[in-house]
Amino acid sequence: MDRSSTLGVTQELAEFVASFEKGKLPSEVRHQVARSLVNWAGCAVGGSAHPALVKAMDAFKPFLGSGHASVLGRAERVDALHAALFNGISSHVLDFDDTHHATLVHPSGPVFSALLALSEFVPIDGDTFVTAIALGIEVECRIALGVCPAHYDIGWHVTGTVGGFGAATAVGYALKLNAQQMAWAYGIAATQAAGLREVFGTMCKSLHPGRAAQSGLSAALMAKQGFTSSERVLEAPRGFAHVMSVNPHLSDSLVDLGTRWVVMDNAFKPYACGLVIHPVIDGCISLHKKLGARTASIEKVHLRVNPLVLELTGKTEPRTGLEGKFSVYHSAAVVLIDGLSTSKHYTDTVVNRTDVVALRPKVSAEVDRSVAVDEAFLSITLNDGTTITQHVEHALGSLQKPMSDADINFKFLDLTAEKFSKEKSQQVLEQCWRVSQLANAGDLGAILRRE
Amino acid sequence: MDRSSTLGVTQELAEFVASFEKGKLPSEVRHQVARSLVNWAGCAVGGSAHPALVKAMDAFKPFLGSGHASVLGRAERVDALHAALFNGISSHVLDFDDTHHATLVHPSGPVFSALLALSEFVPIDGDTFVTAIALGIEVECRIALGVCPAHYDIGWHVTGTVGGFGAATAVGYALKLNAQQMAWAYGIAATQAAGLREVFGTMCKSLHPGRAAQSGLSAALMAKQGFTSSERVLEAPRGFAHVMSVNPHLSDSLVDLGTRWVVMDNAFKPYACGLVIHPVIDGCISLHKKLGARTASIEKVHLRVNPLVLELTGKTEPRTGLEGKFSVYHSAAVVLIDGLSTSKHYTDTVVNRTDVVALRPKVSAEVDRSVAVDEAFLSITLNDGTTITQHVEHALGSLQKPMSDADINFKFLDLTAEKFSKEKSQQVLEQCWRVSQLANAGDLGAILRRE
Repeated sequence: MDRSSTLGVTQELAEFVASFEKGKLPSEVRHQVARSLVNWAGCAVGGSAHPALVKAMDAFKPFLGSGHASVLGRAERVDALHAALFNGISSHVLDFDDTHHATLVHPSGPVFSALLALSEFVPIDGDTFVTAIALGIEVECRIALGVCPAHYDIGWHVTGTVGGFGAATAVGYALKLNAQQMAWAYGIAATQAAGLREVFGTMCKSLHPGRAAQSGLSAALMAKQGFTSSERVLEAPRGFAHVMSVNPHLSDSLVDLGTRWVVMDNAFKPYACGLVIHPVIDGCISLHKKLGARTASIEKVHLRVNPLVLELTGKTEPRTGLEGKFSVYHSAAVVLIDGLSTSKHYTDTVVNRTDVVALRPKVSAEVDRSVAVDEAFLSITLNDGTTITQHVEHALGSLQKPMSDADINFKFLDLTAEKFSKEKSQQVLEQCWRVSQLANAGDLGAILRRE
Repeated sequence: MDRSSTLGVTQELAEFVASFEKGKLPSEVRHQVARSLVNWAGCAVGGSAHPALVKAMDAFKPFLGSGHASVLGRAERVDALHAALFNGISSHVLDFDDTHHATLVHPSGPVFSALLALSEFVPIDGDTFVTAIALGIEVECRIALGVCPAHYDIGWHVTGTVGGFGAATAVGYALKLNAQQMAWAYGIAATQAAGLREVFGTMCKSLHPGRAAQSGLSAALMAKQGFTSSERVLEAPRGFAHVMSVNPHLSDSLVDLGTRWVVMDNAFKPYACGLVIHPVIDGCISLHKKLGARTASIEKVHLRVNPLVLELTGKTEPRTGLEGKFSVYHSAAVVLIDGLSTSKHYTDTVVNRTDVVALRPKVSAEVDRSVAVDEAFLSITLNDGTTITQHVEHALGSLQKPMSDADINFKFLDLTAEKFSKEKSQQVLEQCWRVSQLANAGDLGAILRRE
């Protein structure tokens, strides 16, 4: 396949999406989309009472349009553009959503938030819905592959920047955009692409997938009306890749388009914090078991980790739950004491708990480029001089050690426990798994609301 | 004043805005804000039937909120967030709005579009309105000064990227944000800042001030609810300036803040196309007068211009009105024939007019770094060998040769002629000039609608 020699990358992607026949989507890709849906919906319901969402909803309350679309886990119904924004926020605010490891994109937030909101207004059959999501994640992650890691290193939150392309793809496919309209949608999405890593640790981080969902949905809606844009926005000398990255390699990232599906590399997180902390948490769970009652006599804890761990989660003195998600020290301390990690371990209360605050300064971390991002070496010294070590080769949730469907169900039930009855959670789960067979995938919105 | 040694630039700007006493705004600044209002409102009404606006409104029609705010020049009333978007689009779509020459920012679109929309929902007295606009333009242009020209050279449309800071400032001042909330608003605006020059020549260009208005308005509304963000988003190592520019010089750009007002450098355009073409148009108007009936015997036209002219407006064969705005060749040809330049000279029809298309290829252009951006040297050779030259030292609308208030009124009446009756246009003009004295500046929205 050498389409890139005649078409630009933007048009190649647009042609691919516009001409894709949904029958050609492999069954394992369908299954992976369903896994992604369950994970995304659980995260959105779990984050639906978070102050970041509540404040955003309060800010926009006087300006909302008529209620075609659901805010997951809540009673409100709002216009689809704002539903996309709000569900994008709630699905990311716990830092518990999915990750494409190669690029650090969180693919589901922008894509599902946009398409589900639209499908409550324009019915979309389950088969088309699943195909549209697969295409959205595909385009989003492949564009990210073409500009990362430089793009992320510069300071861009790649979920915010490429998320709009994913959302535009999913919505554009469902709305049957032709290739030219799809290329325009990419132009419109690109010229709204934004999100700075500088705001990590504040409510703005979760704004990024929300805005990406809203911008991508907007882009597809506008392109369908004939709102024009560049038709080569990805690769042009002043286009997305060159302006927002260094030495991009977009063409390479399209190799095997349509035969290998990037969504298969989508990984789910068992723990509600930065992915790079996961191997440390796995190690601390194991060490907690080995320690038993001796947790109280820890003198020091030493971590040897990939450099990204301290770059992304190096906060030594977190004061809030949100900051706790960016502190490997907090995670290590609280998991060594409690022996497990749930979303409740990243609340203001737990971050300031006396025993956690006391153990935290005893944790030191050393970076080592030879340690993989899903790997960690831990060493604990007790007051009596005893040393206990632990090596985590691949963290749970990594591609080598993925969460099972049962793990994902467990996570969904945990995240929705405070919002839905057990019966309702089970019902919702069943509907999510059979998304491909639904006459209108938009019906999922209604059942994911809180009555 | 050495506040920057103790406060970061973000907080310095936030403190400045939050603590500004409106009585301290100089009268010449008030007058310049009124000039900017007349110019902005005229452009928005003039652009209100443009396909770019119509298509955007059609795309979002099912999702609009209740109608507190006016779409200028039209009958519709929509929610304030979308009014900000729509008026931002229409005010820029003719490429006829104001320009801060030092940075190429078009300051009014984001700022007026956001604040007028809000003031139709939350009444804002005229004095506060004018002060908020002055502060908005001040912050927007000073941030641009701190990152340009590198920011623009990289490929960012600076009006799209800094416009959100301006809109957030104006709205934040009117909503009485404290300094911390104002800093958050800058963080929220920064992490939504976007707009690529790659989309110039398409409908997306005018989307930029629209989205900037909407994003800035959103940012201030969210910050007021306590939606948190970075408090040093402008200057942080991974903040706006470092990620989106090279060697930024933010601190320098704050010198004389509060004593010298950048809005005084705001310039208005007499012609509905790229500013860099203006000296060529002035020259062609003069040459048309000199030529008289000899226009038909032009053999060749030679332009010697600043390099930016060909970089920004070098399209040799424009096919649409929009593309015509980016073709110095079209402008030279049509003005030599018609002897004047109005918004009607950038329609599909005129760009494809037989006499214009015939003269266009006879126009050649040479770039010369020693020629200023508001300067041009023109030379015409006739069939009989006669040569006629023209040197334009400063184009009309430059800081050295600004449009008078009467010029701006003439432009407003021209732009609104197809939408309003003469009487209505005169009434609206009067209300705009006395904006400072209005009990609610939001009343301007209603009178700028089309009945």
